[in-house]
Amino acid sequence: MALSEFELIERYFTGIGTSRDDVILAVGDDTALVAPQTGRHLALSLDTLVAGVHFPVDAPAETVGYKSLAVNLSDLAAMAAEPAWLLLALTLPQADPDWLERFAGGLAALANEAGMALVGGDISRGQALTVTVQVAGYADRPLRRDGARPGDGLYVSGTLGDAALGLQLWQGGQREGSDAHSLIERLHRPSPRIALAQALADLANAAIDVSDGLLADAAHLAERSAVAVVIEPHRLPLSSALRRSASAPQATTLALTGGDDYELCLSLPLDQEGAAKALARQAGVILTRIGRVENGCGVRLISTTGETLTYARHGYNHFPVSSG
Amino acid sequence: MALSEFELIERYFTGIGTSRDDVILAVGDDTALVAPQTGRHLALSLDTLVAGVHFPVDAPAETVGYKSLAVNLSDLAAMAAEPAWLLLALTLPQADPDWLERFAGGLAALANEAGMALVGGDISRGQALTVTVQVAGYADRPLRRDGARPGDGLYVSGTLGDAALGLQLWQGGQREGSDAHSLIERLHRPSPRIALAQALADLANAAIDVSDGLLADAAHLAERSAVAVVIEPHRLPLSSALRRSASAPQATTLALTGGDDYELCLSLPLDQEGAAKALARQAGVILTRIGRVENGCGVRLISTTGETLTYARHGYNHFPVSSG
Repeated sequence: MALSEFELIERYFTGIGTSRDDVILAVGDDTALVAPQTGRHLALSLDTLVAGVHFPVDAPAETVGYKSLAVNLSDLAAMAAEPAWLLLALTLPQADPDWLERFAGGLAALANEAGMALVGGDISRGQALTVTVQVAGYADRPLRRDGARPGDGLYVSGTLGDAALGLQLWQGGQREGSDAHSLIERLHRPSPRIALAQALADLANAAIDVSDGLLADAAHLAERSAVAVVIEPHRLPLSSALRRSASAPQATTLALTGGDDYELCLSLPLDQEGAAKALARQAGVILTRIGRVENGCGVRLISTTGETLTYARHGYNHFPVSSG
Repeated sequence: MALSEFELIERYFTGIGTSRDDVILAVGDDTALVAPQTGRHLALSLDTLVAGVHFPVDAPAETVGYKSLAVNLSDLAAMAAEPAWLLLALTLPQADPDWLERFAGGLAALANEAGMALVGGDISRGQALTVTVQVAGYADRPLRRDGARPGDGLYVSGTLGDAALGLQLWQGGQREGSDAHSLIERLHRPSPRIALAQALADLANAAIDVSDGLLADAAHLAERSAVAVVIEPHRLPLSSALRRSASAPQATTLALTGGDDYELCLSLPLDQEGAAKALARQAGVILTRIGRVENGCGVRLISTTGETLTYARHGYNHFPVSSG
């Protein structure tokens, strides 16, 4: 690298995000120093994105910067936490100033929007572009995974399956047209549901973000809460772009198993549904009931007539959406 | 991978470190939850180690686990912080159960010794083995880089240059004999100077850890404090193993420019030297005065007779230790 790690951090990663009263010392010393607000709990998370694994190697630099923070904010959202600080570890094959500037721009845009400050960083050389972001936020009323109760309704925010189809379109070079554009945008720029989660923190019993696909993440919720989760695939919220771009069975399969949507899956008492939907509308997000929580274990899919649907767990492309 | 990320985390990275009152929820939800002790500031840092860049590709798994935490603890030490929590992001070419178990063992050993709890983690697939650790600690009396004052003495803990020669020996396959063993051990298992830093927090004006080499790190201290740092190379503390294994000029070059020692470089008032050395002895670490802080800028080397020595900044192997 022509520039040292120190110079790269000085040039591209100093002063990113908002100025915060609880930050004493940001980038530039051995560690950052922060002063947590008295009596508040902190939610801590970190996630790594590897080029070619978590994002396409040809993804625009801005979107890599944006998404590396977004996936972490989604974890904070799933805890109904209020974003505060982030640290960044960047491993680069080479230091391309243009790429770094655009990466930093994408990261800064979302950090500003979320009211966070970048307080620390580490840049190192390595063969594969790898981005690790660590975030901290205040979690006063955390929405854990283990609070779902039999009788709850199961809900998701926004629409599902868009990012998975967006990835297929991007990889296939089908990037033209407004539907492709909006699906690819969902892949590159997921919207962490911070405001929604804070609005629902008092109503919901449990939450998880949908990063690995609804079936996988609902299974985590079920396991942690020691309950059964029943999903009605015909209720899954699908975007117009997805409906127009995929067959109905394909769209449902993507919504059940596609990752990267970063919507929230919430469990909340059925009698709170009206209040929850009103709060969601105020937060600018659609909330859809997709099933319910029961005694038992695991995830079950049922048809419109209440019959159990079977599916091949590891054969996502051959997922049968007709009743089994 | 035969095991999912979820299963790997459950099996290898649950319950690592000590149990702490300020940890509400560790590995297993969307985020960890902690309850920072009231009124205490937090020091936050993260560092990435890439196989083949920051450690040899054939380094034993235990030492990779140990060192990935040690380099972060060294940053906490440089702030005189008290270790509390860590998060781990691991990128693996494949999930080798034996490797993971030994890696986790090395990490756990140091986490226990430091009184830390592992509260969160992320495991992903990628071509290059990459380990990012993020640490948090309580920093009540932080030792910043910007506090060095003209008139201070400049000090280092322990001995310098060992890890750099250890790396040469490891790479050259010269791993036999007690000197090689102890130098390589210094490379693989650096000792973060947590106890020393806490003991000196009230006496010292500034500190930095020596990770990139003394010259580079002293330059950071000088820049941040807006002072000149004068180093007397003949005062540099060298281990017996280094003296026996390298020529005198080579040993001095390694001590000035070799990275990975993770000792502390401290600036403290000369009249506190006796007290500081006594506290260091109690902490089991040798403290050596290697120079002084003056008005001006940059780093200057002087001979035993006070003459300025010249050196080729980027030609470490050709570093002239005789007076210039």
